[in-house]
Amino acid sequence: MATTHLLTPPRLHHPSPSPAARLRATASLAHPLLPSRPGLAAHHSRSPSPRHHRRRRAMSVRSSLIDPDGGALVELVAPPDRLPALRAEANALPRVRLAPVDLQWAHVLAEGWASPLRGFMREAEYLQSLHFNCIRLPDGGLVNMSLPIVLAIGDADKERIGDKPDVALEGPDCGVVAILRRIEIYPHNKEERIARTWGTTAPGLPYVDEAIASAGNWLIGGDLEVLEPIKYNDGLDHYRLSPRQLRNEFDKRGADAVFAFQLRNPVHNGHALLMNDTRRRLLEMGYKNPILLLHPLGGYTKADDVPLPVRMEQHSKVLEDGVLDPETTIVSIFPSPMHYAGPTEVQWHAKARINAGANFYIVGRDPAGMGHPTEKRDLYNPDHGKMVLSMAPGLEKLNILPFKVAAYDTVAKKMAFFDPSRSQDFLFISGTKMRTFAKNGENPPDGFMCRGGWKVLVDYYNSLQAEEVTPVPV
Amino acid sequence: MATTHLLTPPRLHHPSPSPAARLRATASLAHPLLPSRPGLAAHHSRSPSPRHHRRRRAMSVRSSLIDPDGGALVELVAPPDRLPALRAEANALPRVRLAPVDLQWAHVLAEGWASPLRGFMREAEYLQSLHFNCIRLPDGGLVNMSLPIVLAIGDADKERIGDKPDVALEGPDCGVVAILRRIEIYPHNKEERIARTWGTTAPGLPYVDEAIASAGNWLIGGDLEVLEPIKYNDGLDHYRLSPRQLRNEFDKRGADAVFAFQLRNPVHNGHALLMNDTRRRLLEMGYKNPILLLHPLGGYTKADDVPLPVRMEQHSKVLEDGVLDPETTIVSIFPSPMHYAGPTEVQWHAKARINAGANFYIVGRDPAGMGHPTEKRDLYNPDHGKMVLSMAPGLEKLNILPFKVAAYDTVAKKMAFFDPSRSQDFLFISGTKMRTFAKNGENPPDGFMCRGGWKVLVDYYNSLQAEEVTPVPV
Repeated sequence: MATTHLLTPPRLHHPSPSPAARLRATASLAHPLLPSRPGLAAHHSRSPSPRHHRRRRAMSVRSSLIDPDGGALVELVAPPDRLPALRAEANALPRVRLAPVDLQWAHVLAEGWASPLRGFMREAEYLQSLHFNCIRLPDGGLVNMSLPIVLAIGDADKERIGDKPDVALEGPDCGVVAILRRIEIYPHNKEERIARTWGTTAPGLPYVDEAIASAGNWLIGGDLEVLEPIKYNDGLDHYRLSPRQLRNEFDKRGADAVFAFQLRNPVHNGHALLMNDTRRRLLEMGYKNPILLLHPLGGYTKADDVPLPVRMEQHSKVLEDGVLDPETTIVSIFPSPMHYAGPTEVQWHAKARINAGANFYIVGRDPAGMGHPTEKRDLYNPDHGKMVLSMAPGLEKLNILPFKVAAYDTVAKKMAFFDPSRSQDFLFISGTKMRTFAKNGENPPDGFMCRGGWKVLVDYYNSLQAEEVTPVPV
Repeated sequence: MATTHLLTPPRLHHPSPSPAARLRATASLAHPLLPSRPGLAAHHSRSPSPRHHRRRRAMSVRSSLIDPDGGALVELVAPPDRLPALRAEANALPRVRLAPVDLQWAHVLAEGWASPLRGFMREAEYLQSLHFNCIRLPDGGLVNMSLPIVLAIGDADKERIGDKPDVALEGPDCGVVAILRRIEIYPHNKEERIARTWGTTAPGLPYVDEAIASAGNWLIGGDLEVLEPIKYNDGLDHYRLSPRQLRNEFDKRGADAVFAFQLRNPVHNGHALLMNDTRRRLLEMGYKNPILLLHPLGGYTKADDVPLPVRMEQHSKVLEDGVLDPETTIVSIFPSPMHYAGPTEVQWHAKARINAGANFYIVGRDPAGMGHPTEKRDLYNPDHGKMVLSMAPGLEKLNILPFKVAAYDTVAKKMAFFDPSRSQDFLFISGTKMRTFAKNGENPPDGFMCRGGWKVLVDYYNSLQAEEVTPVPV
């Protein structure tokens, strides 16, 4: 696993690519990237035109991008002209209240990240996801689906619903956001769900504590129809491009390859090295216009991760400071919540990006991993993520790009791919170490992260410490 | 799930079958069956001819049976003329001692039940099994493989092996039984293995206590070459037909359909009802000569299960007493150990029977299930086994036959398919209840089990009680 490789040779839309084996992860740096047209996202997402939401018409535009899973992007937001009728219908239905994480999943489903899923999983989908990490299509093919996307309800909800076929879903602090139709209610065996998803039932898994432990003992699946595009009004909605919006943007830029980079941490120069190196390799392979999708995860993350607004500001500074190329990069928020489920979750991260048009996916050491909640070790073997991803059913069409470990080269004074022949020259700066630097107001070694980006982190940790010492009115 | 159905229509070797939907599980009883030619098995297994063990020549006989997984049966027993060379080679290799369960797995692998596996799993196979319950073939296709078939070793073993490429495997109480080549040693993360296989990490899982808890912290995979056919010398080896021997027997009988029935309990008349009813339905579908493979599991079972020799005697009596037809039945022992892993394990039970030539697999309520080890409930949802089995990747070519629950009909005074419209007439006799009857010397209702079979159980439980009261010299 020391060198990057392609699982399958590139098969689409590119002139005579060099052999897959030629793509290897070694060094070379480059320039800045920014959300190239923030206005565009805002326009699409704030005032969706009827045309944009009519699936059939939109699909008639043929793109050269990789096909969504199942062949067509499944979008579940109703056209605006249906809104009055849907509101009236919802008024007559039993209500189910969504927790914040449930709303994020509704968002994920609504935009087609989980295509071909048409709503929260019914039991047959749930079981396939748990046991096989993939779901069978009507034509017999398989699509990857490693995380159960399910909605839990309690006994009282179940009783209130009775044998009604449809329910209305209420947001955590707003009115009805969706209708779930032809529902199926089945037992929520939390122990089995947790064991099969995380490979442990140890107490202290963040997503379990946030979204499963106190959730109801039933799951409700069905076909979802979302009334209006889901917005968070946090000043970041313009970054939340849907898979269709991303595909449109890739098409507009004439992308012949799209490579996705999932992250939930600040971007340091090791990440940038990797992204630029990948682009260089794709060009070497014969692609003319590879586009980078820099795709921070925007849903639930654990308490000690850097919050989304800070990360987005950090990403902006990194781009302003000139680390990546705005012409060939799109920064957008991936609305999924985080499971911290390692090899199981990395498949979801990759699969969702297929639906957004990415045909290359970069995977690092211990993706979606964390420390074991009760033992002093990594929860997952750090190599398993890329191994599992490269073998996962339903991801054959995606080119997996594992990468070498980047570390701080104390001789060259920059982030570089680790060279074991002079290991004494390299310094590994973990996320924890980085946070400790920032908390203590210390600077990391020169060349670890651009100054503007680093300042964002220092300011954030200062503000946390200020909160800790300043009594805050409750 | 109230009615039996076929997952896929029968596709092989039969004249115009009726539509799949016609096969439904309802009543009808029939006659006896016996291991039709016990001598045959004994002949094959005790004195294997060189020809029998030359894979290539044997495969040149075309059978009309379902293909083994991967296209060819993988047999790993060396031809007898290689024995001296293998013994000499083994003498120079580091030794690994097999536990009794490990030897059973070596047996399973050696005969091709796990085809296309060629030995204990290396890490890539192990991860695919854990995460996907299936393994990818070189041609891109998938075969089912839901249980990790792995061999654990300890730190001392690992150190002794060093960087040697091959090791010799010693039986628990005999000499070298096999050589494992081109080995790979990787960490045995027991917690993750248990969680992903059983969907729980609760203490008290029988297989975990028997074979994992005290096993080593490393797994060793590689290509297996077994020196001689594995025998147990327990008077039952003649029942242990290999997949090839079973295929030969099915061919000899001119089977145009083979339906397998996995069991680890005594056969009662409810089971017989089901098997005979299945045969009737297959005939209705247009098959001319469906053969039943009555296939009790012969490897490790938990302490309170009825032991294999007692079960085999019980099965014989059931057949002698005239419940099934010896002309259309083969009784044989399936050498696998039992995991009690419910929906995960039932896939293994089905997949292994494909390799033995079965194209129909009967599945009941809660297959391979048991009570939760620490909570007062079934460990698995009793419907999940058949649901998971019917959706499992790699089992598409197998026709899954779920069946209705059979119960004792107190009006008809026989075992019959449960009729919910007169539920008060039915008596459910669980395995626990059956054992309680036998332990207490009580008779079950007339028609529950034939007299001869019942007597075997009563005698067995009497002998246990005798042991309990009679001090036994240690």
